Amino acid sequence: MTTTADRTAASDLTLNTRAVADLVDGRWGEHRRRVRDLMLDERLRRADNLTVAEHRARVLEQSRYLVELEVVNRAFPERLGGYDDPGGNIAGFEELAVADPSLQIKGGVQWGLFGAAILHLGTEIHHDRLLPGAMDLTVPGCFAMTETGHGSDVAAIGTTATYDPAAEEFEIHTPFRGAWKDYIGNAADHGTAAVVFAQLITAGVNHGVHAFYVPIRETAPDGAAGDFLPGVGGEDDGPKGGLNGVDNGRLHFDRVRIPRENLLNRYGDVAPDGTYSSPIDSPGRRFFTMLGTLVQGRVSLGGSAVVVSKMALATAIRYANERRQFTGADEDVETVLMDYQQHQRRLLPLLARTYAAQFMHNQLGQRFHEVFSGEHDTDGDRQDLETLAAASKPLSTWLALETIQTCREACGGAGYLAENKFVTWHQDMDVYATFEGDNHVLLQLVGKRLLTDYGREMAKMDVAGAVRWVADRAVDMTLHRTPLRRAAQSIQDGGSLARSAGEIRDPDAQRELLEDRVESMVEEIALALRAAKGAPADVAQALFNSHQHDLIEAARAHGELLQWEAFTEAVASIRDDDTRKVMTWLRDLFGLVTIEKNLSWYLINGRISAQRARTVTSYINRLLPRLRHHAQDLVEAFGYSDKHVGAVIGTGVEGQRQREARDYYRRRRASGNEPVSEKSQKKS
Amino acid sequence: MTTTADRTAASDLTLNTRAVADLVDGRWGEHRRRVRDLMLDERLRRADNLTVAEHRARVLEQSRYLVELEVVNRAFPERLGGYDDPGGNIAGFEELAVADPSLQIKGGVQWGLFGAAILHLGTEIHHDRLLPGAMDLTVPGCFAMTETGHGSDVAAIGTTATYDPAAEEFEIHTPFRGAWKDYIGNAADHGTAAVVFAQLITAGVNHGVHAFYVPIRETAPDGAAGDFLPGVGGEDDGPKGGLNGVDNGRLHFDRVRIPRENLLNRYGDVAPDGTYSSPIDSPGRRFFTMLGTLVQGRVSLGGSAVVVSKMALATAIRYANERRQFTGADEDVETVLMDYQQHQRRLLPLLARTYAAQFMHNQLGQRFHEVFSGEHDTDGDRQDLETLAAASKPLSTWLALETIQTCREACGGAGYLAENKFVTWHQDMDVYATFEGDNHVLLQLVGKRLLTDYGREMAKMDVAGAVRWVADRAVDMTLHRTPLRRAAQSIQDGGSLARSAGEIRDPDAQRELLEDRVESMVEEIALALRAAKGAPADVAQALFNSHQHDLIEAARAHGELLQWEAFTEAVASIRDDDTRKVMTWLRDLFGLVTIEKNLSWYLINGRISAQRARTVTSYINRLLPRLRHHAQDLVEAFGYSDKHVGAVIGTGVEGQRQREARDYYRRRRASGNEPVSEKSQKKS
Repeated sequence: MTTTADRTAASDLTLNTRAVADLVDGRWGEHRRRVRDLMLDERLRRADNLTVAEHRARVLEQSRYLVELEVVNRAFPERLGGYDDPGGNIAGFEELAVADPSLQIKGGVQWGLFGAAILHLGTEIHHDRLLPGAMDLTVPGCFAMTETGHGSDVAAIGTTATYDPAAEEFEIHTPFRGAWKDYIGNAADHGTAAVVFAQLITAGVNHGVHAFYVPIRETAPDGAAGDFLPGVGGEDDGPKGGLNGVDNGRLHFDRVRIPRENLLNRYGDVAPDGTYSSPIDSPGRRFFTMLGTLVQGRVSLGGSAVVVSKMALATAIRYANERRQFTGADEDVETVLMDYQQHQRRLLPLLARTYAAQFMHNQLGQRFHEVFSGEHDTDGDRQDLETLAAASKPLSTWLALETIQTCREACGGAGYLAENKFVTWHQDMDVYATFEGDNHVLLQLVGKRLLTDYGREMAKMDVAGAVRWVADRAVDMTLHRTPLRRAAQSIQDGGSLARSAGEIRDPDAQRELLEDRVESMVEEIALALRAAKGAPADVAQALFNSHQHDLIEAARAHGELLQWEAFTEAVASIRDDDTRKVMTWLRDLFGLVTIEKNLSWYLINGRISAQRARTVTSYINRLLPRLRHHAQDLVEAFGYSDKHVGAVIGTGVEGQRQREARDYYRRRRASGNEPVSEKSQKKS
Repeated sequence: MTTTADRTAASDLTLNTRAVADLVDGRWGEHRRRVRDLMLDERLRRADNLTVAEHRARVLEQSRYLVELEVVNRAFPERLGGYDDPGGNIAGFEELAVADPSLQIKGGVQWGLFGAAILHLGTEIHHDRLLPGAMDLTVPGCFAMTETGHGSDVAAIGTTATYDPAAEEFEIHTPFRGAWKDYIGNAADHGTAAVVFAQLITAGVNHGVHAFYVPIRETAPDGAAGDFLPGVGGEDDGPKGGLNGVDNGRLHFDRVRIPRENLLNRYGDVAPDGTYSSPIDSPGRRFFTMLGTLVQGRVSLGGSAVVVSKMALATAIRYANERRQFTGADEDVETVLMDYQQHQRRLLPLLARTYAAQFMHNQLGQRFHEVFSGEHDTDGDRQDLETLAAASKPLSTWLALETIQTCREACGGAGYLAENKFVTWHQDMDVYATFEGDNHVLLQLVGKRLLTDYGREMAKMDVAGAVRWVADRAVDMTLHRTPLRRAAQSIQDGGSLARSAGEIRDPDAQRELLEDRVESMVEEIALALRAAKGAPADVAQALFNSHQHDLIEAARAHGELLQWEAFTEAVASIRDDDTRKVMTWLRDLFGLVTIEKNLSWYLINGRISAQRARTVTSYINRLLPRLRHHAQDLVEAFGYSDKHVGAVIGTGVEGQRQREARDYYRRRRASGNEPVSEKSQKKS
């Protein structure tokens, strides 16, 4: 229950929105805000009610305008007119979603995928020859990796690039319908070249997937894309659930010849005579290294998803603080939506989760910059970065979908009108959950990495450590895995104050609970999978499959822990007492809703007593009205004005309408002409 | 773990899809299937890539065609050319969503709301005068209830209808912007008349909300809507998140005069001299009785949501049974998606929940028919029906959104293409969660009813009963509310087989767990709210608000219990052993995922031991591969062929592409020209 003291305390605090905004916007805040404000330009904003064709044409024009504005070249080398600033590039890039997510994705295709593939998979000759056209958009390009038959399983694509030493050419070929490139941005209309991923075959050996630069369409003198070049074909993917400003399509190749030099040869090269060479000996490691250079897409998708979550929450909370519905204790005054407990329950945990996703994303951006600027670029750094991105992107893209949908419903019928943005955001963000790596596939990657790390820890241990470990496990098995420890804890909980209600607020207790869950889940799966060692392949496969769901849940728990830690670190950096207190409540809310969601795990595994479990929900219920006082400031700190967002509902129109209605009723009462209600007549 | 025995057993069973289809389609199955097949007519199907204006025009034409086909008149009186068949009408009506949800909603506006309001709120003179035009669509009509300022709180609308005895007319007036009628179907373009809800004021007394028949636009000789009539104004709501075949708009009235007889006067009338009379004395009961006659909308929205869930699952499961991705134990054969545990975890519980929603909906349809055919039409019957509809509609509309989204993601990038339907279904169904009563508001209504019923039970009890009850509670408080009972149960669980793993499969155990939760939650809230008795209004209000979330959760639990009971009843009626066994597994899956979702509640409240809690998830994991064998048959039993659904992805194209790919690799291998993989070279 909320006590009056809690409420007074909460409303007495002042949130320093400027300080919070700096934390939220992170290291590249200044650039981020500059790009955000550029998005107020009408030329860049999404226009309603365009046909698919009109929307595509507009977004292409807008992309050209972005080149003029110099907001798309930050990641590229200084010597070609760029800034060598990978981190700043991503931060600014994410803000394109403010104008129109189609613009962000169109730019992502051109500069984040097509251009980045040339930069990271090509070598200096490719940079000099191909990057200028990619950067200034005189060559709109495709990133032709995905095939109809193979999405997340890139290694299995069917397109071949067979080397012909006689001609010193590669022959790019699509052997069957399932190997058509599919869902490829710029493929339906605008692309004149493509980076095509294909199985590199030379001298009778398949060296696995490599990237090739392939011109695909004629270019008219005015730069417009013309007909397909000989041997190239394709079709339009047609209308999509959203992002209809991007011209996705299919491509196929009928023995298309390209010069040997069009192989982007940083990680694998073919000599004129057909001899293959690579700086990375293992084909598996080589493949993952090549794919790893393209992590930028995953990083920025997650960041854009957080941008849209922030705009959705800003809109729904502004509206919920104005909109009134149903009279409360006073029969003449309707209750403001934000005062309803259920409305707080729906919106405030999403606000806390959005902050958490943002802070984790800021750390990810930092790591990304360190790797790609060369500041910290070891193999290990790259692997950590990929795991971090694979954990962050699923969480933040799903969070965006949940947030947008909840906000749309929280605004009722008004939330369904296109003018209030939620519905187009949902349509655009929908595919973020499956592109640049299906979210479940990514979480499984994270889970496998957790298992590997666990195995390494075990392997590294010396005999004394192993003995200690086994002893610990034995204690653990007795205390955790049976109801005994739970019973013991209940008695403790009842008998002393040491582990009572208050403790769940303690960050150390939250961290311990979140960490313990990840570790225990991973360990449990690892122990179960030991039986697969030496078992026939099908048995091992079946065993692994029977733990797939658990593994994905462990990865999710790991991601949530990282979010919690990033949030906690951000809070610790706040110097202003009031602000730190409010942000600590918000972090607590994040920690507690995460624990509450998995409460049965904590109970079953004896990590928490029934009595303490109750305090999780009751403390959440105490936090909600406190944070409700600061909800408006907490969304203002995101830095998206109603003009950035562009949702009519978030511009104060509802408050205006209510003042008008109140004035009408007041005047009628004053005039003496107010009809008596039959209800009140009957009461008296 | 899945044992081989389980698998064999599961695959040995044969599901009688015809018998299941009959159960699913229910009492009006024949009519339902007739309408479903009519929806194969190209004239009725949604066309892709229409502008909003084109889509609206097409749906209007389709609606006229429905009149020709005689599928929209079943609910109306025989003497006017109808069938007096309210239940059959709704069943058929729900199937319109197969062609296009916009068509269903356009029809819902015309016949389910505009026509139904005339039928249920008007009297014979209105039926004779107004129903024929509503039925044959010569008068496209609006149901003008919702206002910009008031959605679910209908009692607070601002529009007035003031009686003028001198002219024997009502003056319909919109006093301020918030009182504009909003989100009204047929208002933007096609409507020529409206049933307008307004505060009825006569002789200085406001008798609350009543319905009035108001012509709003001129009608051209060809029946097309012309300009607004004098005093009437409005505007277009513009593009929406979906349902863009329906022309929603706003209406306002500037002292528009209508004859006294245009009051739909079944529940309240005004004599020529201005004297008000009503067969229902209490203004509150009168209001709820009037609104209650319009329950049809809620019933059919829930049913259509189930229709779309079924089509989405049929598509995703057909695809998941064809699509392969990543090699398994055999490095040459990729694993079919449906074999992945995670894919089963994502889709099969939704399949179980969709069946549960269907069976509950069938019972609701039966109750609806009994009330509106007059078979069982007491005040109590109507109240029960409304509560049932208020519980069913939120659950089935939210389920549809979750199902569509999960299915879309489960189909990856292909799921995002408009040609595969998921995205437009989601866009159309989105608003079902908030129209015809916001889902949370409806669940709160259910919760309040549960509290009232609980109070009545208490009030009815005699002294002996009360003593017994208190004693029971005392025991309950000791055993349930403290860890004691849990501890006791753990010891029991450990010591005997009586309450061990197998029991959770027992339907009585499932029912007990589900029932117990609803009862205990309601009781706990009721006890907490006792403190509000006699407290000042603001304190009472705050206390109620602090339990709002719990109350809504109790209502949800109640709805899930009703779904489980309906499912169990349906299963019991199956005579074929194999079919009953499979359907029992599916019912178990529904029961267990519902219990699993709330497992922490059961653990905290000592209803289940930690040990037994583990068996919930492990039994779910055993059910999944068994049901996986029957997943295809279980969706075929829904009766939606790929032609009904119209999703390209569900027509076998993926299987065709895979056969082609396999043939290519086989031929290449046979030719001796297959390149060696570098990987396999290095291995050897």
